[in-house]
Amino acid sequence: MTTLECPYSGRFEQTERTTPNRSRERVTYEREAAYRVLDEAWHCDVAFVGPDGAPRVLPTFHVRVGDTLFLHGSTGSSMGLGGREGFPVSVTATIVDGLIFSKSWFHHSMNYRSVVVHANARLVTDPEERWNTFKALIDRFAEGRSDRSRAASDKENAMSALLAVPLEEVSVKQRTGGPVEEPEDEDLPYANGVAHVTSVVSGRL
Amino acid sequence: MTTLECPYSGRFEQTERTTPNRSRERVTYEREAAYRVLDEAWHCDVAFVGPDGAPRVLPTFHVRVGDTLFLHGSTGSSMGLGGREGFPVSVTATIVDGLIFSKSWFHHSMNYRSVVVHANARLVTDPEERWNTFKALIDRFAEGRSDRSRAASDKENAMSALLAVPLEEVSVKQRTGGPVEEPEDEDLPYANGVAHVTSVVSGRL
Repeated sequence: MTTLECPYSGRFEQTERTTPNRSRERVTYEREAAYRVLDEAWHCDVAFVGPDGAPRVLPTFHVRVGDTLFLHGSTGSSMGLGGREGFPVSVTATIVDGLIFSKSWFHHSMNYRSVVVHANARLVTDPEERWNTFKALIDRFAEGRSDRSRAASDKENAMSALLAVPLEEVSVKQRTGGPVEEPEDEDLPYANGVAHVTSVVSGRL
Repeated sequence: MTTLECPYSGRFEQTERTTPNRSRERVTYEREAAYRVLDEAWHCDVAFVGPDGAPRVLPTFHVRVGDTLFLHGSTGSSMGLGGREGFPVSVTATIVDGLIFSKSWFHHSMNYRSVVVHANARLVTDPEERWNTFKALIDRFAEGRSDRSRAASDKENAMSALLAVPLEEVSVKQRTGGPVEEPEDEDLPYANGVAHVTSVVSGRL
Protein backbone atom coordinates (compact mmCIF):
# COMPACT_ATOMS: atom_id res chain seq x y z
CA MET A 1 0.00 0.00 0.00
CA THR A 2 1.35 3.40 -0.94
CA THR A 3 0.50 6.58 0.89
CA LEU A 4 -0.15 9.70 -1.12
CA GLU A 5 2.11 12.51 -0.10
CA CYS A 6 0.11 15.37 1.33
CA PRO A 7 1.84 18.69 1.83
CA TYR A 8 -0.95 19.86 4.11
CA SER A 9 -0.82 17.56 7.05
CA GLY A 10 -1.42 18.53 10.63
CA ARG A 11 -4.27 20.11 12.52
CA PHE A 12 -5.42 23.62 13.22
CA GLU A 13 -5.26 24.59 16.84
CA GLN A 14 -8.74 24.49 18.33
CA THR A 15 -9.99 27.75 19.83
CA GLU A 16 -13.10 28.86 21.68
CA ARG A 17 -14.57 30.22 18.44
CA THR A 18 -13.97 26.99 16.55
CA THR A 19 -15.45 24.79 19.29
CA PRO A 20 -19.14 24.12 18.66
CA ASN A 21 -21.58 23.59 21.49
CA ARG A 22 -23.34 20.76 19.67
CA SER A 23 -22.49 17.95 17.24
CA ARG A 24 -18.80 18.04 18.14
CA GLU A 25 -18.36 14.63 16.54
CA ARG A 26 -18.95 16.29 13.17
CA VAL A 27 -16.10 18.77 13.57
CA THR A 28 -12.51 18.23 12.48
CA TYR A 29 -9.47 20.48 12.56
CA GLU A 30 -7.47 18.59 9.92
CA ARG A 31 -5.77 21.05 7.59
CA GLU A 32 -6.11 18.76 4.60
CA ALA A 33 -9.89 18.36 5.05
CA ALA A 34 -10.33 22.14 5.22
CA TYR A 35 -8.21 22.77 2.13
CA ARG A 36 -10.10 20.18 0.09
CA VAL A 37 -13.37 22.01 0.76
CA LEU A 38 -11.90 25.44 0.01
CA ASP A 39 -10.37 24.13 -3.22
CA GLU A 40 -13.60 22.49 -4.37
CA ALA A 41 -16.10 25.24 -3.47
CA TRP A 42 -16.78 27.72 -6.29
CA HIS A 43 -17.53 30.55 -3.94
CA CYS A 44 -17.31 31.49 -0.31
CA ASP A 45 -19.05 34.03 1.92
CA VAL A 46 -17.20 36.66 3.91
CA ALA A 47 -18.73 38.27 7.00
CA PHE A 48 -17.56 41.47 8.63
CA VAL A 49 -18.98 44.13 10.92
CA GLY A 50 -20.36 47.15 9.09
CA PRO A 51 -19.76 50.77 10.07
CA ASP A 52 -23.15 50.71 11.83
CA GLY A 53 -22.06 47.78 14.01
CA ALA A 54 -24.40 45.38 12.22
CA PRO A 55 -23.17 42.20 10.55
CA ARG A 56 -22.61 42.03 6.79
CA VAL A 57 -22.11 38.96 4.65
CA LEU A 58 -21.14 38.92 0.98
CA PRO A 59 -20.47 36.10 -1.45
CA THR A 60 -17.21 36.22 -3.37
CA PHE A 61 -14.78 34.05 -5.34
CA HIS A 62 -11.59 32.80 -3.77
CA VAL A 63 -8.44 30.86 -4.29
CA ARG A 64 -6.30 29.16 -1.69
CA VAL A 65 -2.54 29.47 -2.13
CA GLY A 66 -0.60 27.60 0.53
CA ASP A 67 -1.91 28.61 3.93
CA THR A 68 -3.65 31.76 2.73
CA LEU A 69 -7.15 32.20 1.37
CA PHE A 70 -7.43 35.05 -1.13
CA LEU A 71 -10.79 36.72 -1.71
CA HIS A 72 -11.66 38.64 -4.83
CA GLY A 73 -13.25 42.05 -4.50
CA SER A 74 -13.50 45.32 -6.30
CA THR A 75 -11.76 48.39 -4.95
CA GLY A 76 -15.17 49.98 -4.54
CA SER A 77 -16.88 47.19 -2.62
CA SER A 78 -18.77 47.81 0.59
CA MET A 79 -16.08 46.06 2.60
CA GLY A 80 -14.20 49.31 2.19
CA LEU A 81 -11.07 47.33 1.46
CA GLY A 82 -9.31 50.39 0.20
CA GLY A 83 -9.35 52.12 3.53
CA ARG A 84 -8.38 49.46 6.03
CA GLU A 85 -5.15 47.64 6.65
CA GLY A 86 -6.39 44.63 8.56
CA PHE A 87 -9.81 43.82 9.94
CA PRO A 88 -11.68 40.89 11.43
CA VAL A 89 -13.59 38.63 9.09
CA SER A 90 -15.26 35.26 9.23
CA VAL A 91 -15.38 33.23 6.03
CA THR A 92 -17.34 30.11 5.18
CA ALA A 93 -17.40 27.74 2.22
CA THR A 94 -19.94 24.92 2.14
CA ILE A 95 -20.58 22.01 -0.21
CA VAL A 96 -23.85 20.06 0.02
CA ASP A 97 -23.29 16.39 -0.88
CA GLY A 98 -26.66 14.82 -0.22
CA LEU A 99 -30.17 14.93 1.18
CA ILE A 100 -30.83 12.50 4.02
CA PHE A 101 -34.34 11.06 3.99
CA SER A 102 -35.00 9.52 7.39
CA LYS A 103 -38.07 7.74 8.71
CA SER A 104 -38.54 10.60 11.19
CA TRP A 105 -38.74 14.35 10.65
CA PHE A 106 -36.03 14.94 13.24
CA HIS A 107 -33.39 12.86 11.50
CA HIS A 108 -33.84 14.42 8.09
CA SER A 109 -30.52 16.08 7.37
CA MET A 110 -28.01 16.85 4.68
CA ASN A 111 -24.57 15.53 3.96
CA TYR A 112 -22.23 18.47 3.69
CA ARG A 113 -18.70 19.71 4.19
CA SER A 114 -18.32 23.18 5.58
CA VAL A 115 -15.28 25.28 6.49
CA VAL A 116 -15.39 28.29 8.81
CA VAL A 117 -12.38 30.61 9.11
CA HIS A 118 -11.83 33.38 11.65
CA ALA A 119 -9.05 35.81 10.82
CA ASN A 120 -7.78 39.32 10.49
CA ALA A 121 -7.78 39.99 6.78
CA ARG A 122 -5.29 42.24 5.03
CA LEU A 123 -5.48 44.00 1.71
CA VAL A 124 -2.91 42.60 -0.73
CA THR A 125 -0.75 45.44 -2.06
CA ASP A 126 2.50 43.78 -3.16
CA PRO A 127 2.46 43.82 -7.00
CA GLU A 128 4.04 40.36 -7.36
CA GLU A 129 1.70 38.77 -4.81
CA ARG A 130 -1.25 40.39 -6.56
CA TRP A 131 -0.12 39.15 -9.97
CA ASN A 132 0.45 35.60 -8.78
CA THR A 133 -2.89 35.53 -7.00
CA PHE A 134 -4.88 36.79 -9.99
CA LYS A 135 -3.15 34.10 -12.05
CA ALA A 136 -4.13 31.47 -9.49
CA LEU A 137 -7.73 32.74 -9.48
CA ILE A 138 -7.90 32.30 -13.27
CA ASP A 139 -6.32 28.88 -13.13
CA ARG A 140 -9.12 27.69 -10.84
CA PHE A 141 -11.41 27.86 -13.90
CA ALA A 142 -9.24 25.37 -15.80
CA GLU A 143 -5.66 24.21 -15.44
CA GLY A 144 -3.28 26.58 -17.22
CA ARG A 145 -6.07 28.93 -18.26
CA SER A 146 -3.99 32.02 -17.37
CA ASP A 147 -1.62 31.07 -20.21
CA ARG A 148 -4.55 30.81 -22.63
CA SER A 149 -5.91 34.31 -22.02
CA ARG A 150 -4.58 37.86 -22.03
CA ALA A 151 -3.02 38.94 -18.73
CA ALA A 152 -4.45 41.95 -16.91
CA SER A 153 -3.47 45.43 -18.04
CA ASP A 154 -2.31 47.94 -15.45
CA LYS A 155 -5.71 49.60 -15.57
CA GLU A 156 -7.58 46.30 -15.12
CA ASN A 157 -5.19 45.30 -12.35
CA ALA A 158 -5.96 48.53 -10.48
CA MET A 159 -9.70 47.85 -10.59
CA SER A 160 -9.55 44.62 -8.58
CA ALA A 161 -8.87 44.21 -4.90
CA LEU A 162 -7.57 41.11 -3.17
CA LEU A 163 -8.02 40.31 0.47
CA ALA A 164 -5.65 37.82 2.15
CA VAL A 165 -7.11 35.68 4.93
CA PRO A 166 -4.55 33.65 6.90
CA LEU A 167 -5.69 30.07 7.46
CA GLU A 168 -4.89 29.68 11.14
CA GLU A 169 -8.18 29.56 13.05
CA VAL A 170 -10.19 27.10 11.01
CA SER A 171 -12.70 24.32 11.55
CA VAL A 172 -14.47 21.86 9.28
CA LYS A 173 -17.93 20.51 10.02
CA GLN A 174 -19.18 17.61 7.98
CA ARG A 175 -21.82 14.94 7.84
CA THR A 176 -21.40 11.80 5.77
CA GLY A 177 -23.20 8.47 5.51
CA GLY A 178 -26.80 7.39 5.45
CA PRO A 179 -29.87 8.17 7.53
CA VAL A 180 -29.83 7.78 11.28
CA GLU A 181 -32.92 6.10 12.73
CA GLU A 182 -34.26 5.68 16.23
CA PRO A 183 -34.49 1.96 17.08
CA GLU A 184 -38.27 2.26 17.51
CA ASP A 185 -38.60 3.72 14.00
CA GLU A 186 -36.88 0.90 12.14
CA ASP A 187 -40.09 -0.91 11.32
CA LEU A 188 -42.08 2.14 10.22
CA PRO A 189 -43.37 1.71 6.65
CA TYR A 190 -41.45 4.70 5.28
CA ALA A 191 -38.68 4.70 2.71
CA ASN A 192 -35.33 6.10 3.81
CA GLY A 193 -32.01 6.76 2.10
CA VAL A 194 -29.70 9.35 0.61
CA ALA A 195 -30.17 11.48 -2.51
CA HIS A 196 -26.72 12.45 -3.71
CA VAL A 197 -26.17 16.06 -4.71
CA THR A 198 -23.45 16.65 -7.28
CA SER A 199 -22.22 19.80 -8.98
CA VAL A 200 -21.65 19.16 -12.69
CA VAL A 201 -19.54 21.46 -14.90
CA SER A 202 -20.35 21.17 -18.59
CA GLY A 203 -16.79 21.70 -19.83
CA ARG A 204 -13.60 23.68 -19.41
CA LEU A 205 -11.79 25.88 -21.91
CA MET B 1 -49.46 34.49 -24.45
CA THR B 2 -50.37 33.62 -20.88
CA THR B 3 -48.73 35.10 -17.85
CA LEU B 4 -47.98 32.85 -14.92
CA GLU B 5 -49.54 34.13 -11.75
CA CYS B 6 -46.89 35.07 -9.25
CA PRO B 7 -47.96 35.74 -5.68
CA TYR B 8 -44.67 37.51 -4.98
CA SER B 9 -44.66 40.53 -7.15
CA GLY B 10 -43.24 43.91 -6.29
CA ARG B 11 -39.89 45.19 -5.23
CA PHE B 12 -38.01 45.49 -1.98
CA GLU B 13 -37.32 49.03 -0.93
CA GLN B 14 -33.71 49.87 -1.65
CA THR B 15 -31.63 50.96 1.35
CA GLU B 16 -28.08 52.17 1.90
CA ARG B 17 -27.02 48.65 2.91
CA THR B 18 -28.53 47.07 -0.18
CA THR B 19 -26.98 49.60 -2.58
CA PRO B 20 -23.65 48.36 -3.94
CA ASN B 21 -20.83 50.72 -4.86
CA ARG B 22 -20.00 48.77 -8.00
CA SER B 23 -21.77 46.65 -10.62
CA ARG B 24 -25.16 48.21 -9.85
CA GLU B 25 -26.49 46.91 -13.16
CA ARG B 26 -26.25 43.39 -11.68
CA VAL B 27 -28.49 44.17 -8.72
CA THR B 28 -32.25 43.74 -8.59
CA TYR B 29 -34.78 44.27 -5.83
CA GLU B 30 -37.53 42.14 -7.36
CA ARG B 31 -39.16 40.02 -4.68
CA GLU B 32 -39.79 37.13 -7.03
CA ALA B 33 -36.14 36.93 -8.11
CA ALA B 34 -35.01 36.82 -4.49
CA TYR B 35 -37.51 34.14 -3.53
CA ARG B 36 -36.52 31.93 -6.45
CA VAL B 37 -32.92 31.91 -5.24
CA LEU B 38 -33.87 31.26 -1.62
CA ASP B 39 -36.18 28.42 -2.67
CA GLU B 40 -33.56 26.80 -4.89
CA ALA B 41 -30.48 27.08 -2.63
CA TRP B 42 -29.93 24.09 -0.36
CA HIS B 43 -28.25 26.11 2.32
CA CYS B 44 -27.62 29.67 3.33
CA ASP B 45 -25.07 31.41 5.55
CA VAL B 46 -26.02 33.57 8.50
CA ALA B 47 -23.68 36.24 9.84
CA PHE B 48 -23.93 37.89 13.24
CA VAL B 49 -21.66 39.76 15.63
CA GLY B 50 -20.12 37.56 18.32
CA PRO B 51 -19.87 38.44 22.02
CA ASP B 52 -16.28 39.57 21.37
CA GLY B 53 -17.45 42.04 18.72
CA ALA B 54 -15.95 40.00 15.87
CA PRO B 55 -18.01 38.75 12.94
CA ARG B 56 -19.30 35.17 12.81
CA VAL B 57 -20.72 33.31 9.87
CA LEU B 58 -22.35 29.86 9.94
CA PRO B 59 -23.95 27.73 7.26
CA THR B 60 -27.43 26.44 7.95
CA PHE B 61 -30.54 25.04 6.25
CA HIS B 62 -33.54 27.20 5.62
CA VAL B 63 -37.04 27.37 4.30
CA ARG B 64 -38.93 30.38 3.06
CA VAL B 65 -42.59 30.61 4.06
CA GLY B 66 -44.31 33.67 2.63
CA ASP B 67 -42.23 36.73 3.42
CA THR B 68 -40.22 35.07 6.18
CA LEU B 69 -37.00 33.09 5.93
CA PHE B 70 -36.68 30.45 8.64
CA LEU B 71 -33.24 29.19 9.65
CA HIS B 72 -32.65 25.88 11.33
CA GLY B 73 -30.43 25.74 14.39
CA SER B 74 -29.91 23.78 17.54
CA THR B 75 -30.81 25.25 20.89
CA GLY B 76 -27.14 24.97 21.85
CA SER B 77 -25.65 26.68 18.83
CA SER B 78 -23.13 29.47 19.11
CA MET B 79 -25.67 31.99 17.88
CA GLY B 80 -26.97 31.82 21.42
CA LEU B 81 -30.49 31.70 20.07
CA GLY B 82 -31.85 30.66 23.39
CA GLY B 83 -30.84 33.85 25.11
CA ARG B 84 -31.83 36.60 22.74
CA GLU B 85 -35.17 37.88 21.57
CA GLY B 86 -34.16 39.67 18.42
CA PHE B 87 -30.74 40.46 17.02
CA PRO B 88 -29.18 41.74 13.80
CA VAL B 89 -28.19 39.20 11.19
CA SER B 90 -27.15 39.21 7.58
CA VAL B 91 -28.01 36.15 5.51
CA THR B 92 -26.82 35.13 2.06
CA ALA B 93 -27.73 32.32 -0.32
CA THR B 94 -25.80 31.93 -3.57
CA ILE B 95 -26.14 29.66 -6.58
CA VAL B 96 -23.30 29.39 -9.10
CA ASP B 97 -24.65 28.79 -12.61
CA GLY B 98 -21.54 28.91 -14.76
CA LEU B 99 -17.88 29.66 -15.29
CA ILE B 100 -17.15 32.45 -17.75
CA PHE B 101 -14.02 31.87 -19.82
CA SER B 102 -13.03 35.16 -21.40
CA LYS B 103 -10.13 36.01 -23.69
CA SER B 104 -8.72 38.21 -20.93
CA TRP B 105 -7.96 37.46 -17.28
CA PHE B 106 -9.98 40.47 -16.19
CA HIS B 107 -13.24 39.34 -17.75
CA HIS B 108 -13.15 35.82 -16.35
CA SER B 109 -16.18 35.63 -14.13
CA MET B 110 -18.97 33.39 -12.95
CA ASN B 111 -22.67 33.37 -13.62
CA TYR B 112 -24.44 33.37 -10.30
CA ARG B 113 -27.55 34.42 -8.43
CA SER B 114 -27.05 35.69 -4.92
CA VAL B 115 -29.43 37.02 -2.29
CA VAL B 116 -28.36 39.12 0.69
CA VAL B 117 -30.79 39.84 3.54
CA HIS B 118 -30.37 42.31 6.40
CA ALA B 119 -32.76 41.86 9.30
CA ASN B 120 -33.42 41.58 12.96
CA ALA B 121 -33.98 37.90 13.58
CA ARG B 122 -36.31 36.51 16.20
CA LEU B 123 -36.44 33.13 17.85
CA VAL B 124 -39.61 31.26 16.92
CA THR B 125 -41.44 30.20 20.06
CA ASP B 126 -45.08 29.78 19.04
CA PRO B 127 -45.75 26.01 18.99
CA GLU B 128 -47.96 26.09 15.91
CA GLU B 129 -45.53 28.28 13.96
CA ARG B 130 -42.70 25.95 14.95
CA TRP B 131 -44.65 22.85 13.89
CA ASN B 132 -45.62 24.30 10.52
CA THR B 133 -42.08 25.47 9.86
CA PHE B 134 -40.50 22.11 10.69
CA LYS B 135 -43.01 20.52 8.33
CA ALA B 136 -42.07 23.00 5.60
CA LEU B 137 -38.36 22.31 6.19
CA ILE B 138 -38.96 18.56 5.67
CA ASP B 139 -41.09 19.17 2.60
CA ARG B 140 -38.16 20.98 0.94
CA PHE B 141 -36.50 17.56 0.63
CA ALA B 142 -39.38 16.21 -1.44
CA GLU B 143 -42.99 17.23 -1.90
CA GLY B 144 -45.18 15.79 0.84
CA ARG B 145 -42.25 14.16 2.62
CA SER B 146 -43.55 15.26 6.04
CA ASP B 147 -46.53 12.94 5.50
CA ARG B 148 -44.22 10.03 4.67
CA SER B 149 -42.16 10.22 7.86
CA ARG B 150 -42.83 10.27 11.59
CA ALA B 151 -43.51 13.74 12.99
CA ALA B 152 -41.26 15.12 15.72
CA SER B 153 -41.80 14.02 19.29
CA ASP B 154 -41.97 16.63 22.03
CA LYS B 155 -38.40 15.82 23.01
CA GLU B 156 -37.12 16.10 19.44
CA ASN B 157 -39.08 19.30 18.95
CA ALA B 158 -37.42 20.83 22.00
CA MET B 159 -33.93 20.11 20.65
CA SER B 160 -34.29 22.26 17.55
CA ALA B 161 -34.35 26.03 17.32
CA LEU B 162 -35.84 28.11 14.53
CA LEU B 163 -34.89 31.66 13.72
CA ALA B 164 -37.30 33.85 11.75
CA VAL B 165 -35.75 36.43 9.43
CA PRO B 166 -38.23 38.92 7.94
CA LEU B 167 -37.66 39.45 4.22
CA GLU B 168 -37.84 43.23 4.04
CA GLU B 169 -34.32 44.53 3.35
CA VAL B 170 -33.20 42.28 0.52
CA SER B 171 -31.15 42.52 -2.67
CA VAL B 172 -30.32 40.09 -5.44
CA LYS B 173 -27.08 40.26 -7.40
CA GLN B 174 -26.75 38.17 -10.51
CA ARG B 175 -24.72 37.69 -13.63
CA THR B 176 -26.06 35.89 -16.67
CA GLY B 177 -24.97 35.48 -20.28
CA GLY B 178 -21.69 34.84 -22.00
CA PRO B 179 -18.21 36.29 -21.78
CA VAL B 180 -17.62 40.02 -22.09
CA GLU B 181 -14.66 40.98 -24.28
CA GLU B 182 -12.82 44.21 -24.89
CA PRO B 183 -13.08 45.17 -28.59
CA GLU B 184 -9.31 44.90 -28.98
CA ASP B 185 -9.38 41.31 -27.65
CA GLU B 186 -11.90 39.94 -30.12
CA ASP B 187 -9.27 38.63 -32.52
CA LEU B 188 -7.00 37.06 -29.92
CA PRO B 189 -6.49 33.34 -30.62
CA TYR B 190 -8.05 32.19 -27.37
CA ALA B 191 -11.21 30.16 -26.89
CA ASN B 192 -13.99 31.76 -24.89
CA GLY B 193 -17.38 30.64 -23.64
CA VAL B 194 -19.44 29.46 -20.69
CA ALA B 195 -19.18 26.22 -18.72
CA HIS B 196 -22.57 25.60 -17.16
CA VAL B 197 -22.63 24.53 -13.52
CA THR B 198 -25.63 22.45 -12.49
CA SER B 199 -26.58 20.84 -9.20
CA VAL B 200 -27.92 17.33 -9.79
CA VAL B 201 -29.95 15.42 -7.18
CA SER B 202 -29.90 11.65 -7.66
CA GLY B 203 -33.49 11.06 -6.51
CA ARG B 204 -36.14 11.94 -3.96
CA LEU B 205 -37.96 9.70 -1.51
